[in-house]
Amino acid sequence: MLHLIGLGLADETDITVKGLEIVKKAERVYLESYTAILLVNQEKLEAFYGRSVIIADREMVESASDSILADADKVDVAFLVVGDPFGATTHTDLVLRARELNIPTNAVPNASIMTGIGCTGLQLYNFGQTISMVFFTDNWRPASWYDRIVENAAIGLHTLVLLDIKVKEPNLDMLARGKVIYEPPRYMSVAQCAQQMIEIDEERGKGVCGKDALAVGVARVGASDQKIVAGTLEQLSQADLGKPLHSLVLVGRNTHDLERDYLRAFAVEPATFDAAWEKARQQ
Amino acid sequence: MLHLIGLGLADETDITVKGLEIVKKAERVYLESYTAILLVNQEKLEAFYGRSVIIADREMVESASDSILADADKVDVAFLVVGDPFGATTHTDLVLRARELNIPTNAVPNASIMTGIGCTGLQLYNFGQTISMVFFTDNWRPASWYDRIVENAAIGLHTLVLLDIKVKEPNLDMLARGKVIYEPPRYMSVAQCAQQMIEIDEERGKGVCGKDALAVGVARVGASDQKIVAGTLEQLSQADLGKPLHSLVLVGRNTHDLERDYLRAFAVEPATFDAAWEKARQQ
Repeated sequence: MLHLIGLGLADETDITVKGLEIVKKAERVYLESYTAILLVNQEKLEAFYGRSVIIADREMVESASDSILADADKVDVAFLVVGDPFGATTHTDLVLRARELNIPTNAVPNASIMTGIGCTGLQLYNFGQTISMVFFTDNWRPASWYDRIVENAAIGLHTLVLLDIKVKEPNLDMLARGKVIYEPPRYMSVAQCAQQMIEIDEERGKGVCGKDALAVGVARVGASDQKIVAGTLEQLSQADLGKPLHSLVLVGRNTHDLERDYLRAFAVEPATFDAAWEKARQQ
Repeated sequence: MLHLIGLGLADETDITVKGLEIVKKAERVYLESYTAILLVNQEKLEAFYGRSVIIADREMVESASDSILADADKVDVAFLVVGDPFGATTHTDLVLRARELNIPTNAVPNASIMTGIGCTGLQLYNFGQTISMVFFTDNWRPASWYDRIVENAAIGLHTLVLLDIKVKEPNLDMLARGKVIYEPPRYMSVAQCAQQMIEIDEERGKGVCGKDALAVGVARVGASDQKIVAGTLEQLSQADLGKPLHSLVLVGRNTHDLERDYLRAFAVEPATFDAAWEKARQQ
């Protein structure tokens, strides 16, 4: 059987008891390592599981899944996913390929940033569609997410923004010379995300995510050094939330006083927060 | 410290290792018992934790929280919540009350139905705002959720529908005679929910959740007998998914072929499913 096991958000102890039991008895254990990361390294996971773990990068999962699925009709194979197993499209695809091979599958749910973001006090039923923000380059500034924000804002909903991570990206100069050298991993910060949102809002001009828009940045949700910062996008574009992973929420119009009361404790500056909150409500 | 600990969705082994460690050492352990239930009973939880558990009903949490928070500035108090700790407004409120008393708080995230619903293959970033469906009575048929569905449908998003549970509801006839007798617990089924959606769509006439609308019913997500059924609301209004808890997703227009391929395996009847899928895409 192929078991997709959610690892939750922060460290090795965020796995469920059910998930850990499967890891301990599985024939092979893979760790998906390209859509998200835990805040602890492979060695720490392996020590905690008492098992060695095979790192599964994008290429292995998307192009060489046969090796992952080998014999999974006879033995238990554990495929570990940071967050919840169904957080990313690529895992749905892996289950489909297992089905084609008549391999039974089992998923062990866990916390995802999509619910972990509740740590901000923003109510989960008030969120619209989730968007992803990628690193802009000099000549590539994808902004289809802007239309999604406009849609969410029109019906008053919060928008969760998931921030880009780049792991195992080849250095393009070296690649041109025929050598595969990987860049160090990069993780987008709340500040970078806020800056990109402000830039695109200036270009597109709908005023949904400009400098004064109210947003919440989070870092290392679920960890003991979890950080939450509420403020305008301009304030967040200057905030330093420390180590990865970061996420951001753009606050919508449909708000509850309870959300304000909860979030205000994390404001960069309470007076600005109150003004931005009132403005967000009236949009 | 007040620890809000998510229990996940199905059974006693869905708690995280981190959560379990806190439960084992906490001075008192409360189990919130009115917004959702696990699929195992209190005795099984207590045996697994090696601890006795105090059942916290709505009245205790909302009106007598002082007893829960007593001494929590000095000792560890664990407050267990089915799903994720921030899934329901009432828990945010409990943290606010702790803050007022200068009691530090800590949340241990876990799977929620809001991400567990990914087991359907529907992509989580394509969901709009979540709605709740309550049991209709002869003279009370609240339908503000209909406007939320219209909003989600207008921008092509799926809608997750959380179904009513009634636990510890007093019998009104007995109450009128001065006696408090509780009704047996009731849990809304996918069939009841589908039926109520069809009825309101007939009244309101926008065609967003009529008989032919495509939906997915789920039961006991995360359990070994988890069930997924895809079909029209009319088909689901006649489906029996067995024991609680049930949830439902109304499928939106923005779909990915991967979602169809995944979900089709759970169709009541593949031909009807294909027709309803095409219709959903073209709305």
